[in-house]
Amino acid sequence: MSDGLNVAVLGATGAVGREFLDLFEKRAFPVKSLRLLASERSAGVAIPFRGTDVKVETVNEKSFSGVDVAFFSAGAGRSRQWAPVAIDAGAVVVDNSSAFRMDPTVPLVVPEINFDSVRPENRLIANPNCSAIILLMAVAPLRKLGTIGRLIVSTYQSASGGGAAMMQDLLDQSKAYLEGRPVIPKVTPHPYAFNLFSHNTAIDATGANEEESKVVAESQKILEMPELKINVTCVRVPVLRAHSESVTVEFVDKAPSEELVRQTLAQTEGVRVVDDRASNHFPMPWESSGQGDVLVGRIRQDPSHPSAVCLFVSGDQLLKGAALNAVQIAEKIFAKASVSV
Amino acid sequence: MSDGLNVAVLGATGAVGREFLDLFEKRAFPVKSLRLLASERSAGVAIPFRGTDVKVETVNEKSFSGVDVAFFSAGAGRSRQWAPVAIDAGAVVVDNSSAFRMDPTVPLVVPEINFDSVRPENRLIANPNCSAIILLMAVAPLRKLGTIGRLIVSTYQSASGGGAAMMQDLLDQSKAYLEGRPVIPKVTPHPYAFNLFSHNTAIDATGANEEESKVVAESQKILEMPELKINVTCVRVPVLRAHSESVTVEFVDKAPSEELVRQTLAQTEGVRVVDDRASNHFPMPWESSGQGDVLVGRIRQDPSHPSAVCLFVSGDQLLKGAALNAVQIAEKIFAKASVSV
Repeated sequence: MSDGLNVAVLGATGAVGREFLDLFEKRAFPVKSLRLLASERSAGVAIPFRGTDVKVETVNEKSFSGVDVAFFSAGAGRSRQWAPVAIDAGAVVVDNSSAFRMDPTVPLVVPEINFDSVRPENRLIANPNCSAIILLMAVAPLRKLGTIGRLIVSTYQSASGGGAAMMQDLLDQSKAYLEGRPVIPKVTPHPYAFNLFSHNTAIDATGANEEESKVVAESQKILEMPELKINVTCVRVPVLRAHSESVTVEFVDKAPSEELVRQTLAQTEGVRVVDDRASNHFPMPWESSGQGDVLVGRIRQDPSHPSAVCLFVSGDQLLKGAALNAVQIAEKIFAKASVSV
Repeated sequence: MSDGLNVAVLGATGAVGREFLDLFEKRAFPVKSLRLLASERSAGVAIPFRGTDVKVETVNEKSFSGVDVAFFSAGAGRSRQWAPVAIDAGAVVVDNSSAFRMDPTVPLVVPEINFDSVRPENRLIANPNCSAIILLMAVAPLRKLGTIGRLIVSTYQSASGGGAAMMQDLLDQSKAYLEGRPVIPKVTPHPYAFNLFSHNTAIDATGANEEESKVVAESQKILEMPELKINVTCVRVPVLRAHSESVTVEFVDKAPSEELVRQTLAQTEGVRVVDDRASNHFPMPWESSGQGDVLVGRIRQDPSHPSAVCLFVSGDQLLKGAALNAVQIAEKIFAKASVSV
């Protein structure tokens, strides 16, 4: 790794794609060469990186030749199409889509929680759903305090989960509303300005939407707790780039004390406790946005259950919920396997 | 009641106060005379009602002389000060503040749920907390389907709960953000534009804020279930005038079927089921705002519990959460006791 990595980003012009470039700079990710890839529609766009402009190329069969690590964030369809090509070309793929997350041969990784699920032979690593990552950053550390039996979660999800276009739509709709013009959604299924709506993914026969099903299945896989019971309700709120979640954690036996939960979370890498009751200061998107850490607060005993605790969590959807988690995965892989590069 | 009621509104210039006047017109509330009262600060303001302008007067010891019904919405302090005066003057007071809600001699009423708690001798009726009303409109009808043991609630509360000034602050902050100017909150404790924050009320030793404590205590009183277990997390979201709530209802024995819950709610006065999975259409503030009905949807079995159901609720905080509920209380009292007027 001494002379760096040949890096590709597929989906370079999207909201997550742009965060990758920013993170490569900020974290001094060892980029030797950078190839930005996207669909034909975005080809030719120039994106600044380390003082020069990098042109976005149309992804094709030869795009991954010589690439050491490819970050994919262009949707499940494109991941299914291009991951085999990139792997055949010798790249390690860190895939931000849902395409391979539940494939039992593919590790689904939050580095602070289960990096040990990555084996040297894995050339494809899945980056989990944003709501699952942000939830588990707060929940996983509590496993050492007792056996968790059930999670009850309601989310407050930002526009960024729907990409740059949804973020712009929220801004445009809000502007229209404030100027007294009609609010006409271009991306969202319902008005988004000063509104909220149930997560805009298809509902299955049990009444769960796809986002909720992802949180359940992926959390069970990441925690290696296939029997963990999870009740999650996913809602979009008019916030730009941070997801928040109201979480109740039920323990099978006795719940740990509030103080022990606070201490444990305060010592967790990637978590920052924001829990100032006196000044009514708790996690919120305004403060979690742009931060790598997931903020956790409102730590308290559940008054309705003898062995449960409540939390409120907020994390940047584009960073820890997507690009940062993917970059951290790559950093750990190439730190560990530096001989192979 | 044939020739109508002498009506007073204390707090006439506030967000809830203005809704009273609108409701009197829309519901043909039998107003014979209308006295608008407020603190000195607002005196002299003229408010249109039925084609004429009514001047707001400073509330004083003689303000309630001859008044049949007085609607109070000027905060707990003013209610404590003026309710005894109004009652002495012969008025029935419907109080929207928290001042008397937990007084065991004062009925705390959601008319569809517990109007039978009002006795002829009651001259003071408390209007419940907005989040409690909206929650219970959906939960109370389910009592006939089984014994409810526990509620788990996360709220998505609007600016209107903080009054007209907070609504304006949300608009002003949002405009500043969109124009690239600094966001400087005037009313909210934290930035509100494209943000959310834990409910801005004081936190007690258990970690609950005042809003959460109200929802617990008032729900137990209204349902006459002092042992009902309630876990509630109250959060302000950047929405103008409708509260939404993600609700899990745990039954002690078997949970009713999803279909039975849907049928029961569809037949409940004051509730409208909005639960269209195929078109991803569920309750949201954009549609509950300005409506008298509380919207209920996302009706489904809780996948994490053998006898629980999940709901998502949205209701207009200024209407069913405040002014409408108060007017409905008065309508029922004076319909019942018309001989006494």
